[in-house]
Amino acid sequence: MTQAAALLETHRRPGPLDRKLLVDCIEACVSCAQSCTACADADLAEDDVTEMRRCIRLCLDCADVCEATGRVLTRQTEFDALTAKAQLQSCEAMCHACAEECHHHAQHHEHCRICEEECRTCELACQRLLEAMK
Amino acid sequence: MTQAAALLETHRRPGPLDRKLLVDCIEACVSCAQSCTACADADLAEDDVTEMRRCIRLCLDCADVCEATGRVLTRQTEFDALTAKAQLQSCEAMCHACAEECHHHAQHHEHCRICEEECRTCELACQRLLEAMK
Amino acid sequence: MTQAAALLETHRRPGPLDRKLLVDCIEACVSCAQSCTACADADLAEDDVTEMRRCIRLCLDCADVCEATGRVLTRQTEFDALTAKAQLQSCEAMCHACAEECHHHAQHHEHCRICEEECRTCELACQRLLEAMK
Amino acid sequence: MTQAAALLETHRRPGPLDRKLLVDCIEACVSCAQSCTACADADLAEDDVTEMRRCIRLCLDCADVCEATGRVLTRQTEFDALTAKAQLQSCEAMCHACAEECHHHAQHHEHCRICEEECRTCELACQRLLEAMK
Repeated sequence: MTQAAALLETHRRPGPLDRKLLVDCIEACVSCAQSCTACADADLAEDDVTEMRRCIRLCLDCADVCEATGRVLTRQTEFDALTAKAQLQSCEAMCHACAEECHHHAQHHEHCRICEEECRTCELACQRLLEAMK
Repeated sequence: MTQAAALLETHRRPGPLDRKLLVDCIEACVSCAQSCTACADADLAEDDVTEMRRCIRLCLDCADVCEATGRVLTRQTEFDALTAKAQLQSCEAMCHACAEECHHHAQHHEHCRICEEECRTCELACQRLLEAMK
Repeated sequence: MTQAAALLETHRRPGPLDRKLLVDCIEACVSCAQSCTACADADLAEDDVTEMRRCIRLCLDCADVCEATGRVLTRQTEFDALTAKAQLQSCEAMCHACAEECHHHAQHHEHCRICEEECRTCELACQRLLEAMK
Repeated sequence: MTQAAALLETHRRPGPLDRKLLVDCIEACVSCAQSCTACADADLAEDDVTEMRRCIRLCLDCADVCEATGRVLTRQTEFDALTAKAQLQSCEAMCHACAEECHHHAQHHEHCRICEEECRTCELACQRLLEAMK
């Protein structure tokens, strides 16, 4: 989806993270942010919008947290492990919560099914990167 | 089919824009934002960073403007043509300026070559969507 | 609210814009973004949420556009008039549309009354800065 | 009373957090984000820009993390303690790291002195809110 991998190759002073896991995580964050923005908006248009309040709220939060995480991970210059980890942990928690909520609606709202999948993918990518940073 | 396209299909009350052009533009915005964040950061790590100030500044701006545009276009509920157009025009201008600046450095900085390409793609996607909205 | 004015004073190579109008506009963008995020969220909690769809959508857009505009205006290094203007025009249009929509709900939702005011202030600040850039 | 506080008063279903600590933290996040964007940009314009790489990088990260945190905290509908805490912890760590780096340059760059102060204020506001959430 993005040129993240190609751009990482061109950096003069890249950070120390495993490149494959890093690219997977950046792309998952970017894609999940877009999906969460779309899901919150699709929820809002549903007839049962009053049942979707929690889903909308968590999707909006998740879009914001994923975007910030994607930006922090994209930056290689003067990489700082402590702050990267803390933001990854927040992103993992956020994606987990959003996936769980979307799961409740996945059977009757296809956008929630897709968004759950995207959140699970991003949660896992954060986990793997965190595991590699131990 | 990408997630942006799949999610658009599931919306109960989609906006009136041509779906192909819309998805192209959303994806170009999201991808260009990530590339511009990466290019600004790669510029910062170069030995000739003092020559890269304008490139860094425009890439940071372009990342912010592309992200906002990607979000506005992602939303389908109660689509508003006037404000969407204005943001598309800003995104087109921003991508053009950023591409021109990256072009000056494309021969010696591969990240600028890639980022120029991404900005040109996004500029064109904005143009095409604006053309279709006339 | 912000340290925007103090920080502007410390910049070694500030842009050419009138400082008073610039600070007013940066602060209006930052404040309006926060108000729009709050109003979209307060709308979502209302019993008449189905009537608030357009307000939620425009508030979410306005928060994104104001944040991007506030960042673009904050940057002084290698100021670029053309792209700054285009983003200011989008922000002006966005704040206008959002204020108009909030106005419809201002009598029964106090958050819409406050948000309308914030949007009008930001619209005006954008107008004044654009006027000064002619 | 600020707009953030006034808007909080109008919410039909506010979250459970101490209102004073919450408003302080939202305002600190919003203000710190703007200061960090300004400081990164002022660093970039300095003659010793090569010495400022780490400061620029952390300020850019801090702006992104503070903005996301400010948005998550602003939302009251269906408040989720676990994800709010994780993002607050990330914001606290980010502000701490950015303050420490700005501190190294505070004597010769006034923007770093101001930005350090803003980061310390935001770090403390996050700490206090986290303390109250135990």
